[in-house]
Amino acid sequence: MPKRIGRYTIMLTTLPSIIGNAGVVGKKEGEGPLANEFDKIHEDEFLGKDTFEKAESELIKDAVSHALSKANITPEDIDCCFSGDLLNQCIGSSFALREFGFPFSGLYGACSTMALSLALSSTLIDSGALNIAVAATSSHFCSAERQYRNPLEYGGQRSPASQWTVTGAGAAVVKNDDGDNPKIAAVTFGKIRDLGITDANNMGAAMAPSAAETISTFMSDTHTKPEDFDLILTGDLGKVGSRLLRELLFKENNIDISQVHNDCGTLIYDLESQDVHSGGSGCGCSASVVCSYIINKLRKKELNRVLFVGTGALLSPTSSLQGESIPGISHAVLLTSSEIK
Amino acid sequence: MPKRIGRYTIMLTTLPSIIGNAGVVGKKEGEGPLANEFDKIHEDEFLGKDTFEKAESELIKDAVSHALSKANITPEDIDCCFSGDLLNQCIGSSFALREFGFPFSGLYGACSTMALSLALSSTLIDSGALNIAVAATSSHFCSAERQYRNPLEYGGQRSPASQWTVTGAGAAVVKNDDGDNPKIAAVTFGKIRDLGITDANNMGAAMAPSAAETISTFMSDTHTKPEDFDLILTGDLGKVGSRLLRELLFKENNIDISQVHNDCGTLIYDLESQDVHSGGSGCGCSASVVCSYIINKLRKKELNRVLFVGTGALLSPTSSLQGESIPGISHAVLLTSSEIK
Repeated sequence: MPKRIGRYTIMLTTLPSIIGNAGVVGKKEGEGPLANEFDKIHEDEFLGKDTFEKAESELIKDAVSHALSKANITPEDIDCCFSGDLLNQCIGSSFALREFGFPFSGLYGACSTMALSLALSSTLIDSGALNIAVAATSSHFCSAERQYRNPLEYGGQRSPASQWTVTGAGAAVVKNDDGDNPKIAAVTFGKIRDLGITDANNMGAAMAPSAAETISTFMSDTHTKPEDFDLILTGDLGKVGSRLLRELLFKENNIDISQVHNDCGTLIYDLESQDVHSGGSGCGCSASVVCSYIINKLRKKELNRVLFVGTGALLSPTSSLQGESIPGISHAVLLTSSEIK
Repeated sequence: MPKRIGRYTIMLTTLPSIIGNAGVVGKKEGEGPLANEFDKIHEDEFLGKDTFEKAESELIKDAVSHALSKANITPEDIDCCFSGDLLNQCIGSSFALREFGFPFSGLYGACSTMALSLALSSTLIDSGALNIAVAATSSHFCSAERQYRNPLEYGGQRSPASQWTVTGAGAAVVKNDDGDNPKIAAVTFGKIRDLGITDANNMGAAMAPSAAETISTFMSDTHTKPEDFDLILTGDLGKVGSRLLRELLFKENNIDISQVHNDCGTLIYDLESQDVHSGGSGCGCSASVVCSYIINKLRKKELNRVLFVGTGALLSPTSSLQGESIPGISHAVLLTSSEIK
């Protein structure tokens, strides 16, 4: 049963397990440093479909199918799926999931969505409201680029602080289980923070304050320090936002995470050779990294305590055109290996 | 604590209360039959802002402020807010809520969002994961019209089965409380149903199958019949979708809801005189009707058992242009007066 601790953190006393996880990606991500971690690398950016949006739906379907199969369960076993993406009206998720026939709760948290879906799934499992849930999220470079920026054919120049939307999806099946699986131990739903950043090409900077707030809230609520974690993993601040986050936390909260911090946006690509500027972004970035590399490492007990902080920029092209600044939000999920009780 | 019953329904054993509720609307809704029920009727469709999107954010802010004030609590008391809207990237909600400073979980369920936000809020309150939550949802005719259809200035002709997007928002504050407040007794998360309807001007027809499925699932899970409810309230199928729902349920499940069924989309306007064709729609339709008229009636015990079934059409302009059909989803929430134990 969930138990509140401090002001905003929820401890999951049954430690819901991740009984199946999968990350699937596109060609560029398959050429990056995590290539061997993914369940599938799709060389065709259309995934055999005729539009990028339909291709994105295929990515989610593929991630969910792999995760269900690795958990050795069928769609009929699922009580609810929590999923979202970046496409207008979240059509990536809804068109993907209609074929599975399980209940569905649609989410929108921009790039924080994977953390949000894990947070809701695990809290509802811990409470007994659900027995088995799926958390899933996606993004696709080509569908995002034309929706948020320019047609691909335009060949727009990218600014140095910009991030590259990951073509990828991740899915995790969550269940109470005694097995030797990674666990979800705690959750903090984040607040919206807006410090007035208006540069839509520097979303790392827009999201860093909310990440700092959620991390300091989690640590204060749970009386923990950076040394208590093997990894504090943000997704996706990129190189620019990551540096800002470390500075903010140190200057404002006297918390030094530099020894244990990493970011999904800097992990998924080789920033030197892959021409992605500040790193990866998009719902599918942290989804594919967490649901493959990170959960795999927890499964192998090469990591034991990971604070995953999904970071989202809650802007739209319309809000930017109307001169609005970019609100950020970050949700935290504490992932542990089965070593930790 | 939540307790699963049947295959997909969750009974909330602590019966979380709605300790504050508010519905705010625009001018046209204020000229309809529910005028006296709303907390505020905004005569200015811009609400003093310079764009329709910013006006929509004001609507949510206003609904949440009214609900908090009626519950006699402050934003600092809120553990999490569950909110969404129809605007791309849900900017209606996120820009509205950033000023309150409470944690936020973004949702996307199209017009089912109010039911989804009530479902998640109440289940997490019942489990003890949250103490006080807010559920809130909005839509705005002018922002929806230009995003989904045509610029207002174009003056497009409307087809007979089309629905009129409500300018309105609703908010409900949910908490475990012994007082004489309306309760949330059960929840069913719906499945996506897609029977291949492709006419984006007939969303009632696209959503009716999912409403039928969720209602029959709820009744089968809880061993109830239509006579067990004072009202089965869909939102928003409109006149066309409502007729289809009744036919579908009768023909396929032998369930006759005709004596107890009504729909938020047909309640909010006078269909004869207000030129809205099949009725109201939009996240703000069921939000403003349920969070004013319906919850007020439960509070006065003029209604005692209401099955509220939020219905959403999970399409986007892009999916329709790409020839996709329209998936529907419906989430059910059982609302009771404090008479029912």
